[in-house]
Amino acid sequence: MGARPTPLNSGEAIGPGRYAQLVQQLKIGLLGCGNVGGALVGQLDARRAAIARRTGVELTIGAIAVRSVSRDRDVDVDASLFTTDPRSVVEDPEIDLVVELIGGIEPARELVLRALELGKPVITGNKELLANHGAELCAAADDAGVDLLFEAAVAGGIPLIRPLRESLVGENVTRVMGIVNGTTNYILTQMAENGAGYADALAEAQSLGYAERDPTADVEGYDAGAKAAIIASIVFGATVVAGDVYHEGIAGITAVDIATAERLGFVIKAVVIIEGQGDVDGDGPPEVSVRTHPAMLPASHPLASVRDSFNAVFVEGESVGDLMFYGRGAGGEPTASAVLGDLIDAAINRVAGTAARIGHLERARICPIDDLDTAYYLAMEVIDRPGVLARVTDEFGRHEVSIRSMEQQGMGDDALLIFITHRSNEAAVQATLHSLRELDVVHGIRTVIRVVGDED
Amino acid sequence: MGARPTPLNSGEAIGPGRYAQLVQQLKIGLLGCGNVGGALVGQLDARRAAIARRTGVELTIGAIAVRSVSRDRDVDVDASLFTTDPRSVVEDPEIDLVVELIGGIEPARELVLRALELGKPVITGNKELLANHGAELCAAADDAGVDLLFEAAVAGGIPLIRPLRESLVGENVTRVMGIVNGTTNYILTQMAENGAGYADALAEAQSLGYAERDPTADVEGYDAGAKAAIIASIVFGATVVAGDVYHEGIAGITAVDIATAERLGFVIKAVVIIEGQGDVDGDGPPEVSVRTHPAMLPASHPLASVRDSFNAVFVEGESVGDLMFYGRGAGGEPTASAVLGDLIDAAINRVAGTAARIGHLERARICPIDDLDTAYYLAMEVIDRPGVLARVTDEFGRHEVSIRSMEQQGMGDDALLIFITHRSNEAAVQATLHSLRELDVVHGIRTVIRVVGDED
Repeated sequence: MGARPTPLNSGEAIGPGRYAQLVQQLKIGLLGCGNVGGALVGQLDARRAAIARRTGVELTIGAIAVRSVSRDRDVDVDASLFTTDPRSVVEDPEIDLVVELIGGIEPARELVLRALELGKPVITGNKELLANHGAELCAAADDAGVDLLFEAAVAGGIPLIRPLRESLVGENVTRVMGIVNGTTNYILTQMAENGAGYADALAEAQSLGYAERDPTADVEGYDAGAKAAIIASIVFGATVVAGDVYHEGIAGITAVDIATAERLGFVIKAVVIIEGQGDVDGDGPPEVSVRTHPAMLPASHPLASVRDSFNAVFVEGESVGDLMFYGRGAGGEPTASAVLGDLIDAAINRVAGTAARIGHLERARICPIDDLDTAYYLAMEVIDRPGVLARVTDEFGRHEVSIRSMEQQGMGDDALLIFITHRSNEAAVQATLHSLRELDVVHGIRTVIRVVGDED
Repeated sequence: MGARPTPLNSGEAIGPGRYAQLVQQLKIGLLGCGNVGGALVGQLDARRAAIARRTGVELTIGAIAVRSVSRDRDVDVDASLFTTDPRSVVEDPEIDLVVELIGGIEPARELVLRALELGKPVITGNKELLANHGAELCAAADDAGVDLLFEAAVAGGIPLIRPLRESLVGENVTRVMGIVNGTTNYILTQMAENGAGYADALAEAQSLGYAERDPTADVEGYDAGAKAAIIASIVFGATVVAGDVYHEGIAGITAVDIATAERLGFVIKAVVIIEGQGDVDGDGPPEVSVRTHPAMLPASHPLASVRDSFNAVFVEGESVGDLMFYGRGAGGEPTASAVLGDLIDAAINRVAGTAARIGHLERARICPIDDLDTAYYLAMEVIDRPGVLARVTDEFGRHEVSIRSMEQQGMGDDALLIFITHRSNEAAVQATLHSLRELDVVHGIRTVIRVVGDED
């Protein structure tokens, strides 16, 4: 176990009031200076004095590690602060706090671990790193007795991690459902409101800079999955990694699906769903299920009205009931705002010689998707003749999948059957689909979308 | 200045992980055991072990002060814990933390001050006390170096105060707009969705227990105003008291107003609006305006879909953009959940010998309502004959109130004129209304509602 850092100010506590006499100066080492890092420098400059008056800490940038010093940047700092050696920034004894915004696993992981080992609090927005090595980093922070804060890693500027970690630590959270990827929410909003097809909506998102040229991480759910793993770890106090997350992308969603959903009183959203049984009985690690996929939500659900690139996280707790946190999930300025909130917190703790620690997390037990119960929307083309419906519904019954509603639309020689099931075992639904595909009267399963937020 | 409390554990820090070896036991003195207090006792019992595993603190109830010991309570605690002497609970050296849920100003104020003076962290849900004596209490907490936490005082179970205090302390918040009174939101929802009149909707709210038999505090905006004062103080770091808040109630809203608003694409909500210029330049205390009144919100605004007795607070920040916090604003269990989150935070801080302090707040400068700019919806009955519209619009022009849209409906000999203005000076709008009432062609001003959330 590393040494706890000595409080910087061991005598009288500094005054946190507006007219604090003693302002403690702390130097930040910034690793990475892209979109978010640049915005952070600007926010710090604009609010340094106000922050000092309100908190008693004055934050200045002590060094900035970048890939290329010569690149032109829209950042107003002394050129001598830039270096291409991030390790030198971490090691620099003048640097009190480290902000990691370089992304990816290495060298970010190694740099964060080293900073913690040196007793320096770390603020990171690196969801990939946290979703794969979060337990190792939290343990290192715990051993060193310093802060590891990462509000910016999930849902951009929305204060979410802190409320989950602190306000709700005593709450028995049963489910978290969120829209945490702005790109897919933008695409689905365009499809719903302007009748755009998937390809056109994606192209528009790309032209606006909401989607990358290679949109895989967003549209296939990898980005949302990493965020879901981080949320799950915080909510249930046990490690969930990116690889634990079941994911399905949105590329298969059609304009027809969205129109049909709307007619039935639903909207289609790409959501993350985290369910579990909190550590109530202390009987081994909590069991958690974590998944991301398109889902049909009732139009009256608070998440249903989250439009464009906005994010929102809906939390269901035993005592607190339903909560929702809504805001900008991405963008340099909102994300830097989250980093700045963490920075101030870490700085105040650093001065007081304390830290808000998560501790050593054990691995959560991951509940496989096959064991979950979910309601389904299923659309299939069948031959339009007597007896077909009986053969189809018989397959549902055989697998103990209970039908909640059905409608039939003529399509010439074929008919379109649309079913919404009651909550049913996932494996049973998949087995039903498999059997249905084998039936000669079924010409094709057109759409399979889970229905959530409408518990029956 | 009082002595800072000695850390309870001055050696190695306790482990906050699941398998912490050293669990610190802390005793709570509970003042008041009604709806919220009873729910808190139940939540503590259900989650004591889980909280201890996750945080390293074990919380037990050490004493409960109530008005009558003999009253039958649905609370499962040892009868010997009850007393009718709250001061003895505060003074008891066995009591580490005090939870104040008795409400009202005295003796709550005196008890909270004494607890702080004794170095005991205080958790309170008492909005009346905070909205009138918050600065005195915060200063006392600061002097003693202990926590004064009050998440439960505003918006029930919604984590709001902590995100505002901590996550957004570095943000330049420009406006907060909230639905913080569940009773009025329930009444307005019933009127909008079921076409109920105000009196019927109020009676229904009363029969469901959402409204008191004397509903004045809710429907006249006193409850919302107290919460707005607390939010404003936290957001702008300067004292705003209940008396600073401009308020108008909802009793004048009619079913016709709501139907007209809907036709024009608006909903009518009772909101609090807090605007100001943060302490950016350090040039004296911040100037803040705080008000609560019915308002027309665009149907697409996130607050517009907050239904029934739910609360939500919408925050606009320079960097973070738009945020919203949504959930249950009242009720024993949600409010107790907020108290429990604060209790755990205070307990962890108590063990570490630290506190999250607000400091000595100076008085905010209060911007009078007359100086604000607001858009208005105005409906008036006029004589239906040529030249009347010119005389009416001339009054707007004379007072420099710019009209954004107008419509006219025939009503027999009279016509109904409906105006929506651009953002205009409040005093100028009031002067316009005064002049219009003097015109012989104007038979009556039927409705005056501010329009917000739709900046032009």
